[in-house]
Amino acid sequence: MSVKEISRNKVFGGWHIQYTHQSDTLNCDMRFAIFIPHNATQSNPVPAIYWLSGLTCTDENFMQKAGAFGKASELGIAIIASDTSPRGESVANAEDYDLGQGAGFYLNATRQPWANHYQMYDYVTEELPNIVETNFAVSNIKSIAGHSMGGHGAITIGLKNPDQYRSISAFSPICNPINVPWGQKAFSTYLGDNRDSWLEYDSVELLKKSRSVLPILVDQGDLDGFLTEQLKPETLIEAANLNQSPVQVRMQSGYDHSYYFISSFIDEHIQFHAKYLFAD
Amino acid sequence: MSVKEISRNKVFGGWHIQYTHQSDTLNCDMRFAIFIPHNATQSNPVPAIYWLSGLTCTDENFMQKAGAFGKASELGIAIIASDTSPRGESVANAEDYDLGQGAGFYLNATRQPWANHYQMYDYVTEELPNIVETNFAVSNIKSIAGHSMGGHGAITIGLKNPDQYRSISAFSPICNPINVPWGQKAFSTYLGDNRDSWLEYDSVELLKKSRSVLPILVDQGDLDGFLTEQLKPETLIEAANLNQSPVQVRMQSGYDHSYYFISSFIDEHIQFHAKYLFAD
Repeated sequence: MSVKEISRNKVFGGWHIQYTHQSDTLNCDMRFAIFIPHNATQSNPVPAIYWLSGLTCTDENFMQKAGAFGKASELGIAIIASDTSPRGESVANAEDYDLGQGAGFYLNATRQPWANHYQMYDYVTEELPNIVETNFAVSNIKSIAGHSMGGHGAITIGLKNPDQYRSISAFSPICNPINVPWGQKAFSTYLGDNRDSWLEYDSVELLKKSRSVLPILVDQGDLDGFLTEQLKPETLIEAANLNQSPVQVRMQSGYDHSYYFISSFIDEHIQFHAKYLFAD
Repeated sequence: MSVKEISRNKVFGGWHIQYTHQSDTLNCDMRFAIFIPHNATQSNPVPAIYWLSGLTCTDENFMQKAGAFGKASELGIAIIASDTSPRGESVANAEDYDLGQGAGFYLNATRQPWANHYQMYDYVTEELPNIVETNFAVSNIKSIAGHSMGGHGAITIGLKNPDQYRSISAFSPICNPINVPWGQKAFSTYLGDNRDSWLEYDSVELLKKSRSVLPILVDQGDLDGFLTEQLKPETLIEAANLNQSPVQVRMQSGYDHSYYFISSFIDEHIQFHAKYLFAD
C-alpha cells in the first residue's frame, strides 16, 4: 500500500502529484496521478472523481490537457487519473495501439497471456481507491468519469457498483463495445470467444438488464471521427429508455474526439458530480 | 501570405486551428496556431494576444496545456501561438536543447549560419501579425505574452514596439539574458561577442534606458528550479523602479516552471490584457 512520489506541481492552490506503486492486482509497478485541492486535510477529507482515459493514454493526458483543476479547486474535489493498462517489460503487449499496454479496457482478462496482469476492473474498483483513501486526505465518497475507452470503463464500472459511486459521466464513450471493432478485438483477445462473458462489460447490455441507480451524463461531439463506427451513443440512449435509466446524452455540435472538446465541458461534468458528491 | 490549414478543433464554442505557411522572413515553412473565439466575424474582428513559448516548445504547448480558451472565449479575444524558432532540415541547428531549433530567443541573428533563418524578432513583430490580420477576423489591436524564453521575448518586443502592442505579460521570464547562462550562450552564438549588440534584446537593459509605456504583468513561481540561475526577476524589479515603469512582478508561493503554474494564472493574464485591448 506504500506509494512513491515522482513529481509534484502546485496548481490552482492545490497539488498535482504523480505516484508509483507496486500493484498486487496487476502484478506490476503502476503510476497514477492525483489532484488534491488546497482545502483537503486529514480532518476534512474531500470527495473524489476517478478519471479513466482512452486508448494510448497514461495518467498524464487528462491532467495536462483537460483544464479541470480550476473548478475542482473551487468546489474542493480531488481527481485521480489512473493509467489505462498494466505496464512494463514483463507485461504482455501487442503491436497495435488498441490492444495490450495502453488499452486495458477496464476489464479482468481471463485468457493468457493477458490474465496475469490485465485486471484493470479490480484495480480501478478496489486497489486504487484503497491506496488513495489510505494515503491521502480523500474520502470514500466518489464518482467516476472517463473518455472513449475510459468512458466505457466509467459507465460499466459505475453501473456494476452503484453503492461505491455517486454519479457517472463520460465523454465520447464506447457505448456498445460488443458490437464495434475496438470492443470486439479487445474482448475476444482478453476474454475469449464466449460472448456471454462480454456482456458484463458492455454499457448497453447492462442498461438493458436493469435500470441505472446512478445518474449518467454523456457528452458526444457530432464531428467525432469515431462516432458511427466505434462509439454509437444512440445504442446507449435506446437502452436507457427501456428501463427509464437517468441517462442524459448531449450531442455537441461541431466538436471532435480531442481534449479540446473535453476541456470545453469538463467544468460542467465536475459541477454535475459535485451535486451528488456533496449530497447528504 | 497564403496559409494552409492542417488541423482544426472546436473548443469553447470557437476554433483552435493550426496553419503552415512559407515564411519570407525566416526562409522556411512555419507552423502557428490560432484560437478564434465564436464572436469573431469580418465585420467584428477581435483583438488578439500573441503568445511566445519557451525553450523546446512549439505552437502546441500553450494551446494544449494552458487552459486559456474559456476566458478568451468569454471575453472575445483571439490567441496566436508562434513557434519558437525557424524549422526544417535546411535550417541550422544544434545538439543542445537551449540552442538552435526550438530556441530562437525572439531576436534577429547576425552571425552565420544562423542569420539565414533565425529572424524571429521580425517574424513575430511583422510577418506573423500581417498574416493573421490579413487572413482572419482579427484586428490589429494586440498584446503580447510568453513563458520563460518567451517571457523574455514578450517583454523585449513589447518594450521596443509600444505603438504596436497594448500590454505585456510574462510567466517566469528570462529577465536579464545578458547575465545568465541561457542568454549568454544564445546571444554569443546568434549575435557574436560584441555585447553592445546584446543590449537591445535584454528586458532589464531596455527598462534601465527608458520608462516602459506599456503596463507589464509578471508571474513567477518561487519554487521554479530556474529562478536564481536563469530568470532573476529581482533584476527586472530593480530596473523598473529606476524609471517608475509600470511593472508588477508577483512572486507566487509554491509554484514551479510548468504549465500547471501557467494554467493557474492564465485567466488573470487574459483579464489583464483585456483591460487594455478593449480600452478606447
